[in-house]
Amino acid sequence: MDFFSDNSVGASPRVMAALAAANAGSSTSYGKDAWTTRVEARFATLFERKVSAFLVLTGTAANALALASIVRPWGAILAHEEAHVVEDECGAPEFFSDGAKLVDLPGTGAKLTPQAVTKTLSHLRAGDVHHVQAQALTITQATECGTVYTPAEVRALKEAITPRGLKLHMDGARFANALVTLGCTAAEITWKAGVDVLSFGGTKNGALAAEAVIFFDPADAEEMTWRRKRAGQTLSKGRFLGAQFDALLAQDHWLDLARHANACARRLAEAVAKGGAARLAWPCEANEVFLVLPPAVRQRLKAAGIGYHDWSARSLAPEAALKDGEIVGRFVMSFATEPAHVERLIAAIAG
Amino acid sequence: MDFFSDNSVGASPRVMAALAAANAGSSTSYGKDAWTTRVEARFATLFERKVSAFLVLTGTAANALALASIVRPWGAILAHEEAHVVEDECGAPEFFSDGAKLVDLPGTGAKLTPQAVTKTLSHLRAGDVHHVQAQALTITQATECGTVYTPAEVRALKEAITPRGLKLHMDGARFANALVTLGCTAAEITWKAGVDVLSFGGTKNGALAAEAVIFFDPADAEEMTWRRKRAGQTLSKGRFLGAQFDALLAQDHWLDLARHANACARRLAEAVAKGGAARLAWPCEANEVFLVLPPAVRQRLKAAGIGYHDWSARSLAPEAALKDGEIVGRFVMSFATEPAHVERLIAAIAG
Amino acid sequence: MDFFSDNSVGASPRVMAALAAANAGSSTSYGKDAWTTRVEARFATLFERKVSAFLVLTGTAANALALASIVRPWGAILAHEEAHVVEDECGAPEFFSDGAKLVDLPGTGAKLTPQAVTKTLSHLRAGDVHHVQAQALTITQATECGTVYTPAEVRALKEAITPRGLKLHMDGARFANALVTLGCTAAEITWKAGVDVLSFGGTKNGALAAEAVIFFDPADAEEMTWRRKRAGQTLSKGRFLGAQFDALLAQDHWLDLARHANACARRLAEAVAKGGAARLAWPCEANEVFLVLPPAVRQRLKAAGIGYHDWSARSLAPEAALKDGEIVGRFVMSFATEPAHVERLIAAIAG
Amino acid sequence: MDFFSDNSVGASPRVMAALAAANAGSSTSYGKDAWTTRVEARFATLFERKVSAFLVLTGTAANALALASIVRPWGAILAHEEAHVVEDECGAPEFFSDGAKLVDLPGTGAKLTPQAVTKTLSHLRAGDVHHVQAQALTITQATECGTVYTPAEVRALKEAITPRGLKLHMDGARFANALVTLGCTAAEITWKAGVDVLSFGGTKNGALAAEAVIFFDPADAEEMTWRRKRAGQTLSKGRFLGAQFDALLAQDHWLDLARHANACARRLAEAVAKGGAARLAWPCEANEVFLVLPPAVRQRLKAAGIGYHDWSARSLAPEAALKDGEIVGRFVMSFATEPAHVERLIAAIAG
Repeated sequence: MDFFSDNSVGASPRVMAALAAANAGSSTSYGKDAWTTRVEARFATLFERKVSAFLVLTGTAANALALASIVRPWGAILAHEEAHVVEDECGAPEFFSDGAKLVDLPGTGAKLTPQAVTKTLSHLRAGDVHHVQAQALTITQATECGTVYTPAEVRALKEAITPRGLKLHMDGARFANALVTLGCTAAEITWKAGVDVLSFGGTKNGALAAEAVIFFDPADAEEMTWRRKRAGQTLSKGRFLGAQFDALLAQDHWLDLARHANACARRLAEAVAKGGAARLAWPCEANEVFLVLPPAVRQRLKAAGIGYHDWSARSLAPEAALKDGEIVGRFVMSFATEPAHVERLIAAIAG
Repeated sequence: MDFFSDNSVGASPRVMAALAAANAGSSTSYGKDAWTTRVEARFATLFERKVSAFLVLTGTAANALALASIVRPWGAILAHEEAHVVEDECGAPEFFSDGAKLVDLPGTGAKLTPQAVTKTLSHLRAGDVHHVQAQALTITQATECGTVYTPAEVRALKEAITPRGLKLHMDGARFANALVTLGCTAAEITWKAGVDVLSFGGTKNGALAAEAVIFFDPADAEEMTWRRKRAGQTLSKGRFLGAQFDALLAQDHWLDLARHANACARRLAEAVAKGGAARLAWPCEANEVFLVLPPAVRQRLKAAGIGYHDWSARSLAPEAALKDGEIVGRFVMSFATEPAHVERLIAAIAG
Repeated sequence: MDFFSDNSVGASPRVMAALAAANAGSSTSYGKDAWTTRVEARFATLFERKVSAFLVLTGTAANALALASIVRPWGAILAHEEAHVVEDECGAPEFFSDGAKLVDLPGTGAKLTPQAVTKTLSHLRAGDVHHVQAQALTITQATECGTVYTPAEVRALKEAITPRGLKLHMDGARFANALVTLGCTAAEITWKAGVDVLSFGGTKNGALAAEAVIFFDPADAEEMTWRRKRAGQTLSKGRFLGAQFDALLAQDHWLDLARHANACARRLAEAVAKGGAARLAWPCEANEVFLVLPPAVRQRLKAAGIGYHDWSARSLAPEAALKDGEIVGRFVMSFATEPAHVERLIAAIAG
Repeated sequence: MDFFSDNSVGASPRVMAALAAANAGSSTSYGKDAWTTRVEARFATLFERKVSAFLVLTGTAANALALASIVRPWGAILAHEEAHVVEDECGAPEFFSDGAKLVDLPGTGAKLTPQAVTKTLSHLRAGDVHHVQAQALTITQATECGTVYTPAEVRALKEAITPRGLKLHMDGARFANALVTLGCTAAEITWKAGVDVLSFGGTKNGALAAEAVIFFDPADAEEMTWRRKRAGQTLSKGRFLGAQFDALLAQDHWLDLARHANACARRLAEAVAKGGAARLAWPCEANEVFLVLPPAVRQRLKAAGIGYHDWSARSLAPEAALKDGEIVGRFVMSFATEPAHVERLIAAIAG
């Protein structure tokens, strides 16, 4: 029994069924198929406007292609120091953008504040030929610490970058989980709050392997066809990308999957908060629970054979700093998490 | 009814079943799963030696990663002027290799000869600081004109490049189709004939989306782990890549699929050769048939609603040059081609 | 005594004097100095219009920066197969452009024809996502074979590319030599004939190390400030770049230097044409003379201790093909060539 | 009268004389000349061992080429957050290295400590495919705050990175100024202390435009010939690079030039320390003086028409933080600084 990641489970049965159904017959290649066309319409409905949607195969590719579309090779991209694009993509943003620079900012709970952004921008001299030029800000929604930006927070970040003309990218690998928590519309948390480009995650939320890059400004999407192909992300049997998103978006299946994962996470978080054997490192706002684990709890988890990942404590608030022997553990819930497993986990923590 | 491409059909039923089976339960991410491990063993058996195998999602990525692993950014890669890496990957080899140069060579039937290679090498000055340095030769097997290199031909090409130290890459998007025709072992047509790196195709031969890069020299593979990840080609739910190849390689399923496609192609080629209404542009040696089509035949195909692609005539032998009104048409057979469709095609051509 | 290259001599005395004069006192760095400002005005006068001029240190950098400014990483640049950008820059255009592809064309005397360009464009499918996109044509003036494009020829090339929207770059490493021969204005052979960007050579014509990139369309120059700096081509003591061009352009010094070099070349070419011991490989239209040398002549040159470079015979016209034992030799004249040396060379050839 | 930078003055008279002398006659191009050969021997003597020395044209190119030689595109380079490579090269290290990541560290006086390095390394997971791989540490000598690393400090940094296998690069744009202060040998502060590659500055210390990349491990230099050419940094009239260094290194001219600059700086620093109208932001250890300037002093400097640059206060020690109205001003001394100007500056500060 493990809570390692939402990518250690498979795909949702509906997604698998959609793939099987899409397998029949012949179809136009390279994304000119009926499934992909339908998905484009679904995204327009979801976002309440025309969007440019590009399906790709991995989250790393989605983020790197999105960022490469909005910065020049001498551009700087502001990001949280523990953002996925900084920590977990092996330099893909630098590769796809032909050398742009990620500028890392600190922030509690992996969240950026307008203050931190403004301070960093003051070091990045606009128009100075000697200096990389700040051109994008990227935020993760939900964050790498399981927290969530509200529309007001996104808007405040956008306002902090607007005077300098930066574009705003949202890494939505766990966009569904954030949306379910926020209870707002997809439009409200993206383009209405100032997001220019969104990496819309599928794989962590029930897809087999499918992500989408959503451009709200068509001008940013103009070169994406070439970028995607040149990066080896244009699937020849493109129907299989379309079919996954088609199944996810139909009848809000993607939100139901996220709701389940979030509910499991909330159940764990509330039990821990009540129990007192461990404490929450950050508020549980999506499908991940980060717990500060004393040695005794860790021993019980080990004895129970329960898997989880040790996690960085860098983004802890100062008042929440680790005490002797404590570490942070990450427990990720997915669409497939069995509630009984969550109860066993709660019991193991409580001792 | 169309014969556009072997990527306009779906995946083999066995591959789909394998994906469904692999979907159960939790599994380690990023290619550390049981399926991928099993596939690595299968490749070792197939090639009669230890190999370094890396699974990726598209053929473009496979070729570009393979080539980037064996050349430096100031390197030159010799290729046929109509090779997939030259014509159909939108500059992916240049992107992944940080700027290496593809040097295009002519050749009948999309095949390169040692003479052409030697002549081109004479223009590429070894060790001259002003000049890009020839570091790799890439050949396609089966070629873009549906022809096949014999082991002796591959060996002769290797001998032509050995004095200059070039590595030999084989783009095996249709490797299965070539192998079935050749009747030799996978080892004989690759490393035993001098191939250093192979793009082993899955997608055009029954996979949903799966390709493998096979390194025969482990030194060439040393950086591939980073390259693949940084290119967004490391699948998080890696089991789904492993499962596809596992199903293909088990019980020679991949060869059976290719045998069917090749048989359909041979049936068409023989019928056309006998019939005389059209003629073969190049010998039919794999699963593609290229026909020189006079206007009357084209009209009959159109009337019958039969789809095919117009094709370049650049690689025709001088004696086979097009006459007035003729064009070249490409007809691709796949694992899923229905023999009845081939008969209808034959009838439409014959008139 | 050698005729290896126009870069094996030093700088013109006036250029050296200008450097010495510019050395006094303090000056703003990075090209914001009085010399560079004056040079920008001189270029505007020379080209009879406002231009964006960027001074750099080497011809390779000038060409690579110019090309990178007018193509995207998935772009194709058409060039003669023996162009300096293809043969002598070790992949700099590919590096600076983040991977664009040079497509090599043949042509007698290193010159491209509209026919060759049109034919190549027919293979490069516009708008096809699988294919690199033709975005620039580059020509060398004077060419690598010492020939020259007339304004009408440049215009015809521009017309061949206009329907496809390619930009036209001129590598003018020996621009002065061409201009002196043509007898037209600098405007007539550049923007008035359709050139969008010009590499204006200084080093081969009396500078110590100075080249300029001249943009006729300011939109192409928008990012050049960043590109040049990021490439390490923005000189901190920028006055020393400005002073070189200031001295060259003042009182048409650059044209006088080129006139001398061309006259030396013409003297040699005419003597050889008359003498008959060797023959011209291509018409002598600038400061280089390419001779087809029989063994006996080569022996006499060797005996006389006269240095020259063996040269490629690829761009010979079919009727001028080499006969047994012949090779092509390149003899380059410079601003500093001593007429007496040319006479000794003529004598050695004549025997 | 200004103290903006050591690149706002010209070249040393001896360097100018050497250029004039080198101008005579014909010489082999591209760095195969007698001057460059002599310089290579001089470097060997200076460093008491064989080195691989590559002359280039700008400091940005020297640093970027040096770093690109010791990291892979997915590598991370640790650097002070105010290092020249981070702040002043417009992304050149990222460009030349095909996308490596600069990881910025804080440190008082622009100096890095082993503690800071070790802490940062703990966030950069070695061998983790998801993460960029720490491969180099770069330090500036003298630093951007005018401070200097001792051999012991360099060695301690080397020890901090050795377990992880990072290479050590030293940006020696002001290497001469540091060496003069340290009083040790060039060998002691470089390879004997663990430096693998050195950017040896010429331009800021009396050259017109000349820098050298010195490799102490020949394996790191293997590809540099291609890298330099491809970057447009291989000067055709290479003798003019050689002649500059030849003049600088002969009879320790370079050290004399630095001694003068340092003496001017020390004079200012001591006068300010005694005078009390302003205070030193950091110890004056080379040729730059950074002063914390109250408003009154700034007004006097303005009235006296004395130029200097405002400077970042980020690297101030906590106890030296700016008080109301204070700013940091940078005053740079060069080989050409007139002592009388320093006295006028001192008087203006004192009021």
